[in-house]
Amino acid sequence: MKKINFHLKEYLERRKRSVDAALRRWIPAEDEFPPQVHRTMRYSVFAGGKRLRPILALAAAEAVGGTARDVLPLACALELIHTYSLIHDDLPAMDNDDLRRGKPTSHKVFGEAMAILAGDGLLTEAFHLLTRADLMKNISPLRRLQAICRIARAAGSLGMIGGQAMDIATQGRKIKPPLLEYIHTHKTGALIAASVGAGAIAGGASLRQWKALEGYGERLGWSFQIVDDLLDERGEMKQLGKAVRKDRAKGKATYPGILGIAESQRKAEELVQEALSFLRPFNGRAHPLRAIANFILERTN
Amino acid sequence: MKKINFHLKEYLERRKRSVDAALRRWIPAEDEFPPQVHRTMRYSVFAGGKRLRPILALAAAEAVGGTARDVLPLACALELIHTYSLIHDDLPAMDNDDLRRGKPTSHKVFGEAMAILAGDGLLTEAFHLLTRADLMKNISPLRRLQAICRIARAAGSLGMIGGQAMDIATQGRKIKPPLLEYIHTHKTGALIAASVGAGAIAGGASLRQWKALEGYGERLGWSFQIVDDLLDERGEMKQLGKAVRKDRAKGKATYPGILGIAESQRKAEELVQEALSFLRPFNGRAHPLRAIANFILERTN
Repeated sequence: MKKINFHLKEYLERRKRSVDAALRRWIPAEDEFPPQVHRTMRYSVFAGGKRLRPILALAAAEAVGGTARDVLPLACALELIHTYSLIHDDLPAMDNDDLRRGKPTSHKVFGEAMAILAGDGLLTEAFHLLTRADLMKNISPLRRLQAICRIARAAGSLGMIGGQAMDIATQGRKIKPPLLEYIHTHKTGALIAASVGAGAIAGGASLRQWKALEGYGERLGWSFQIVDDLLDERGEMKQLGKAVRKDRAKGKATYPGILGIAESQRKAEELVQEALSFLRPFNGRAHPLRAIANFILERTN
Repeated sequence: MKKINFHLKEYLERRKRSVDAALRRWIPAEDEFPPQVHRTMRYSVFAGGKRLRPILALAAAEAVGGTARDVLPLACALELIHTYSLIHDDLPAMDNDDLRRGKPTSHKVFGEAMAILAGDGLLTEAFHLLTRADLMKNISPLRRLQAICRIARAAGSLGMIGGQAMDIATQGRKIKPPLLEYIHTHKTGALIAASVGAGAIAGGASLRQWKALEGYGERLGWSFQIVDDLLDERGEMKQLGKAVRKDRAKGKATYPGILGIAESQRKAEELVQEALSFLRPFNGRAHPLRAIANFILERTN
């Protein structure tokens, strides 16, 4: 296991570099008119981040025999959607956060109007990247449409936005585990699952492969959010790059808050085991997905 | 001319009804979980509106031999994008408007957080509609991708969002005509032009037809915004359903403000004539597009 983790670290770093390079190339430059909005968009995209969603999409595509190169624009689109959701989530009317990834949040630096517009711009740019005629030429148009649909569904009001809406609507209220599960699986889990699912579709997955990888992605996404809550509860601000124990301060429902730390840890581990079980039919090409699942439990930021 | 206008009125009403019925069918229902966000989304979509962008997309598709039925989801997607842009534009951090189409704006009714999320949800739902496997089956996947790309480009930071960003960034500043032209052609013109352009692509346009219709759409969109400014300057609040002379009160640059009313009127008329000239190669199927161009100059709301 140690050996795998060592490889994983290099793998993640290599992948992050290639995603970053692609993002730099494909997002409008800072001096593109109007510079105000493009500076704001790029600020948040390049404020750090593990690029987990793009890396999952690339790994899922490779697990079914696709190539990372062909799926790179889709991977980048997922990061743009993730970034837009953070910008809007941090707004004063939403979570009102001043710090993200160790840096002042978008609206703190550029003002609320520009932060709203930059978020809108990143979301729209994601779908532009997904449909540009000069990119992803090796993926059939039908598969591209399917992959985009998968992403749009996950990012929309029946997915991520639905989760965020309930997260805000229930703030300060005592909620029961099923509603917390809804919030977790939608706010964070939906886009993570869609990263795996859309990557698999674009990579050429058969229906059976796609279903298995969706099962993996769903468990992975859910456990990711539980670990996020645990880190918020136990973490140190320096390591996380954002304020900690904010969830509790805001009266947000969290897994540790409802079920306790030990039970939350157990639940996250169980989900990771389930995620891994979906990968059984896959050969060594799914190894990065296996290593990432184990990594979820060990991450510290 | 009178005769055409009479027919146009019926045509617009019939089309509006079919777009409205499709929107009701395709946007998640009010009681879909979470109801908070779906109520907010539907409130703004069904708060009125002429459905100009969808109607233009349908008319452009028909002008090149396509059918309205096949392009209806694309037409609806354009209205969702338009509506999201209005919700975000009305936010306190942006234009801070309390009234839109004669009704309280989204954030006034549902609060800022839900208005931001509903806008995000509508934008995302647009791309979901554009890619759903059960819709637009008669349009080739490649044409669908091209049409979506055309829309994403127009709605993004190099299009509509860029125009909005400059509109806000220049508030209270004296600006020169070229920058005002940028704001007009991007804030409003880009999505109107894309409605025509994407409708044409989805309708099966040849490259030559598509270019002509893009020329039409570009002039139409620009003249539309000039007329909007003129209406704001002269209009009555009752007829417009929103506060008037707000542009001036906010120190916004407008065509009448920079060039005067007479010169603005002349410019709008000139653009409509140019728009019409692009339709010369088309037969009677482009008649609705011709009538709409004339209507732009006569509209009172």
